Amino acid sequence: MTNTARHTTAIILAAGLGTRMKSRLPKALHRLGNRPMITHLIDTAREIFDDVVVVVGPDMPELEKAVQPYRTVVQTERLGTAHATNTAKDLFGDGDIAVLYADNPLITADTMRRLTEARQGGASLALLGMRPADPGRYGRIVEEQGRVSRIVEYKDANEQEREIALCNAGVMCAGAADFRRWLAAVGNDNAQGEYYLTDVVAMAASEGRVQCVEAPETELAGVNSRVELAQAEATLQQRLRISAMEGGVTLVSPETTFFSTDTCLEPDVVVEPNVFFGPGVTVRSGALIRAFSHLEGCTVGEGAMIGPYARLRPGTICAADTHVGNFVELKNVDLGPGAKANHLTYLGDASVGAQTNVGAGTVTCNYDGYFKHRTTIGARNFIGSDAILVAPVTIGDDALIAAGSTITEDVPAGALAFGRARQTIKPDRGLEIKQTLKAKKEQG
Amino acid sequence: MTNTARHTTAIILAAGLGTRMKSRLPKALHRLGNRPMITHLIDTAREIFDDVVVVVGPDMPELEKAVQPYRTVVQTERLGTAHATNTAKDLFGDGDIAVLYADNPLITADTMRRLTEARQGGASLALLGMRPADPGRYGRIVEEQGRVSRIVEYKDANEQEREIALCNAGVMCAGAADFRRWLAAVGNDNAQGEYYLTDVVAMAASEGRVQCVEAPETELAGVNSRVELAQAEATLQQRLRISAMEGGVTLVSPETTFFSTDTCLEPDVVVEPNVFFGPGVTVRSGALIRAFSHLEGCTVGEGAMIGPYARLRPGTICAADTHVGNFVELKNVDLGPGAKANHLTYLGDASVGAQTNVGAGTVTCNYDGYFKHRTTIGARNFIGSDAILVAPVTIGDDALIAAGSTITEDVPAGALAFGRARQTIKPDRGLEIKQTLKAKKEQG
Amino acid sequence: MTNTARHTTAIILAAGLGTRMKSRLPKALHRLGNRPMITHLIDTAREIFDDVVVVVGPDMPELEKAVQPYRTVVQTERLGTAHATNTAKDLFGDGDIAVLYADNPLITADTMRRLTEARQGGASLALLGMRPADPGRYGRIVEEQGRVSRIVEYKDANEQEREIALCNAGVMCAGAADFRRWLAAVGNDNAQGEYYLTDVVAMAASEGRVQCVEAPETELAGVNSRVELAQAEATLQQRLRISAMEGGVTLVSPETTFFSTDTCLEPDVVVEPNVFFGPGVTVRSGALIRAFSHLEGCTVGEGAMIGPYARLRPGTICAADTHVGNFVELKNVDLGPGAKANHLTYLGDASVGAQTNVGAGTVTCNYDGYFKHRTTIGARNFIGSDAILVAPVTIGDDALIAAGSTITEDVPAGALAFGRARQTIKPDRGLEIKQTLKAKKEQG
Repeated sequence: MTNTARHTTAIILAAGLGTRMKSRLPKALHRLGNRPMITHLIDTAREIFDDVVVVVGPDMPELEKAVQPYRTVVQTERLGTAHATNTAKDLFGDGDIAVLYADNPLITADTMRRLTEARQGGASLALLGMRPADPGRYGRIVEEQGRVSRIVEYKDANEQEREIALCNAGVMCAGAADFRRWLAAVGNDNAQGEYYLTDVVAMAASEGRVQCVEAPETELAGVNSRVELAQAEATLQQRLRISAMEGGVTLVSPETTFFSTDTCLEPDVVVEPNVFFGPGVTVRSGALIRAFSHLEGCTVGEGAMIGPYARLRPGTICAADTHVGNFVELKNVDLGPGAKANHLTYLGDASVGAQTNVGAGTVTCNYDGYFKHRTTIGARNFIGSDAILVAPVTIGDDALIAAGSTITEDVPAGALAFGRARQTIKPDRGLEIKQTLKAKKEQG
Repeated sequence: MTNTARHTTAIILAAGLGTRMKSRLPKALHRLGNRPMITHLIDTAREIFDDVVVVVGPDMPELEKAVQPYRTVVQTERLGTAHATNTAKDLFGDGDIAVLYADNPLITADTMRRLTEARQGGASLALLGMRPADPGRYGRIVEEQGRVSRIVEYKDANEQEREIALCNAGVMCAGAADFRRWLAAVGNDNAQGEYYLTDVVAMAASEGRVQCVEAPETELAGVNSRVELAQAEATLQQRLRISAMEGGVTLVSPETTFFSTDTCLEPDVVVEPNVFFGPGVTVRSGALIRAFSHLEGCTVGEGAMIGPYARLRPGTICAADTHVGNFVELKNVDLGPGAKANHLTYLGDASVGAQTNVGAGTVTCNYDGYFKHRTTIGARNFIGSDAILVAPVTIGDDALIAAGSTITEDVPAGALAFGRARQTIKPDRGLEIKQTLKAKKEQG
Repeated sequence: MTNTARHTTAIILAAGLGTRMKSRLPKALHRLGNRPMITHLIDTAREIFDDVVVVVGPDMPELEKAVQPYRTVVQTERLGTAHATNTAKDLFGDGDIAVLYADNPLITADTMRRLTEARQGGASLALLGMRPADPGRYGRIVEEQGRVSRIVEYKDANEQEREIALCNAGVMCAGAADFRRWLAAVGNDNAQGEYYLTDVVAMAASEGRVQCVEAPETELAGVNSRVELAQAEATLQQRLRISAMEGGVTLVSPETTFFSTDTCLEPDVVVEPNVFFGPGVTVRSGALIRAFSHLEGCTVGEGAMIGPYARLRPGTICAADTHVGNFVELKNVDLGPGAKANHLTYLGDASVGAQTNVGAGTVTCNYDGYFKHRTTIGARNFIGSDAILVAPVTIGDDALIAAGSTITEDVPAGALAFGRARQTIKPDRGLEIKQTLKAKKEQG
């Protein structure tokens, strides 16, 4: 939210069907950086605009739900961008509005700020332009005597106009009242019979100064197909990778690190190849995230060592100097300072005290098919390999659980607990069984 | 197979030793998209040609076996491409033949079709040309008065000829009888003393019209080294990725998705980063394949959620709405609708009924060292964590297996089964053991 | 080490704070190819130079330790590159010295050799130059009448000098006595008040012939930020990948293979996508390293099959024809010929005899919280699934361990050992428990 006096509203057009996506999902709900494109765009817009209104299509209840608490209006007929914008006219407020697009999700807050500042600096309308490597069939921004005069669509452009490098990105900002007036005047006398938002540019130019704010092509590239979605994801990931590295994080192989937009890595975190950060991850300074790890909704403390092949799931907090090793899954676990779970383990809904060592193959049985139960393990425990801890169960400090034990009752501090059968040996019987099986196999 | 009247045969030259591969394996058997290059090429050729004949080198029994049921001829001496082609002359048939190369495996069916159509449209010979970014030492296709007249090898070309952008890819198509006649006339009066197939182009041009069919360089790039093999694999993967995305699949990070050529993903499948599809995988609409998963020879139903770190091996069918989680391996398993196996589990040679929940650490013991046995689990079971199911064994519907149990006998429907020792606690004994060990360690 | 008569010493400047790295670690200790940059550079330098001296900053004990056994000198004040070099003047010896930089770690032995040869061929000073795609603000190498006359810093260069494509890389080689004399004459009469090493070039040129040795930009690119560190890593990995492929290794997806500089793969090794090689790995001919595997400090024998998702840790030797499967961790394990551990297993500090089959979920309990103990398993054993082997323990040849057993005592050859509870069945009790829980859940 800006501190300028004039109220600003972002109108986001999100009614598009996205036919080229070949999807049952509305286009705006396809995901980028582990969340819907529309969420990504709204979060950026909220840094600059006071309010957000989303224009959705009919029969998009999932989308209406996803954009809450922001207001939505439904464009019942798809009659063009001016028509879509006009659908929201009662929610324009009395300050400025900017029109954004759900399928242009990568526009940055900085670019949005420059757009609104251009408007607030006195332009009757500010619009975004770009200079794509291949201008192709984009509309061109026509300037006359150093001022923007209009947009010419590619198909209507003459040869000289097609030479123009500056292309229209569709995004524009102007006063709400002006916009209402202009939109009312836009006609649909064209081949498609649609109402085009670009028509307001010439209207604005006839009344005052139209200012073009340029932005890089990568910010303004549209997402109309899965290939373009993947390209947008790559652009976003590249931004997040550069940003992490500039903040003092080592990404050994950045192109194999996958971020969410809210991933927070402190300086001197080292990330090995092939690590996936889902939403809600914070990693403290000096922690090492080893190869093939997968983190979501968790916090990793200073100096911790996670992975390779560690999976930290939501609700997990690994304190300083913890070790979580290979093929270990932690879900909703509070792992105390210096605690270790290094091999083939599932801990769910558990707390593990400081310095406790959890052996290979340990499993907390946290689910009975209907309810989740909690396992509480104290400090300085030694949990032997393949221990099965049937929750709810509590193990005191300094206890020792024998390897291979199934623990169903609480274990007091300092106790030794076991629950396993005694070993029996039948001499020669192993070889006899093998020989019998072998003979059977040879007989076919 | 085309429906044209004239019979067509693809002659694939595969006798090359591939010295630059530095391999004990014949070059044609090196793999691309999870199968031998030669298989890839033959499968493409079979879309266009009525028959396929493979020219192999001596002592290549593995290759002869790999190309079955197609006929092979052995080129006992390596005297050049014309000599290799001529080795197969008795199998040319009486229609058209085209000469293809095992080390040009990426040529598409569309290009093959255009080649045969050019021939069938009246050319005495049709050949493939390309315009590489760096024409380097490729032979050049010389045109005179708008018609192809001959191929000039780079080393024989004058400066003007070296300026020609159109390069020879070696692939050509003509009538079988003509080819036999031309091949008989090819000489070996050159520095290498070899019989070059390119010589037939001038012969064909002297008798009729030679037509060049252009194709992209990426299709025609040769595989002569491991670096080029990797480049060919990258080209193939890129094709498969684009094709999947255009079909309505989301690849979050396409460059980390590895496909086999037969991978079949329905629209609205989402594939997270770092997923490997081995041969024989089908994934139904709406399924989510999470990061670090590895699938081979399996079918995943609608709305299923696989991974992260799930491994589905051949013979596995995951029905609709199943969940397979981290560090779980399924081999030859039939997982019923809504069934779940979410953590650290090995199921092999098993069927699991609808809605059954398989706990963490569960293992089916399907192998006794000689025979494989089957585990049959009914519907709505709750298999407790770390259950060991010793096959052959059958568990009825609605049963409950206690955590930590080893199950060796059938469990009736609705029963509770357990097989584990009772827990024992020895107060203070845990701490005593620790203190003894600690003292011992401190003494060194 | 070269065999030339003149003694050569590499002076490596490593005192830089690396402020742009935003790190508590000295820049020279940031890692490249799984080891510190400085180690990488020293190892390369040792191929060419007789001795190495490292100039470190104050308060860098970790760095001094890391470069042992090479001598270090401390540059207590940071007064420029000439000052840093001069700090080491007592260790120049009486032959030639070359000045290298810890943040230019990718320079190859071949380039170092060409540099020293240029000097030994009679140049008063030899220096490295490069022609970057974007020369930007690099100092330019000025040549007059075909000879290098001086370096001009970008900010001091006139327009004509800025057009020079040949840029200074800072690396130079000359006689030790000359260098001492020149360094004494370098002044600090410049904006920064620093002593610049580049000033010696003009001095050398006034006394004799200065020769520029050109090298590719990728070798000479500096590492001053995490982004540049990642670029250097990418360059190094690309070198290692190409080198492996040229040696006859198939990398199915080279850009996903991560090497250490000492990774040794023999011809006809095949590496699937997403494999990580830590330090100290040797893989013999014909072995297959499957996707998502992670290897460190281990040897893999001929024809072995490792992965997917296998983790081999230091001290592990997998003999010929062994199989290590998914979610299996081996640490300090000697796996005999043809032995198999295919599923969800942790073996640590163990030896496994030839042809032994280790079942799914097997764990060696090698650690008691204070000491590590060894597990010895003989040949042709069948270790049932989920066996827990509490070390120290020895299992003879041809034995059979029943699934689900905890083994605490030695098992003689040929014996059958088990340690598990008998199975009990309570009819209808499973369903009753479920119904009770369900009712409770429905009541909320």
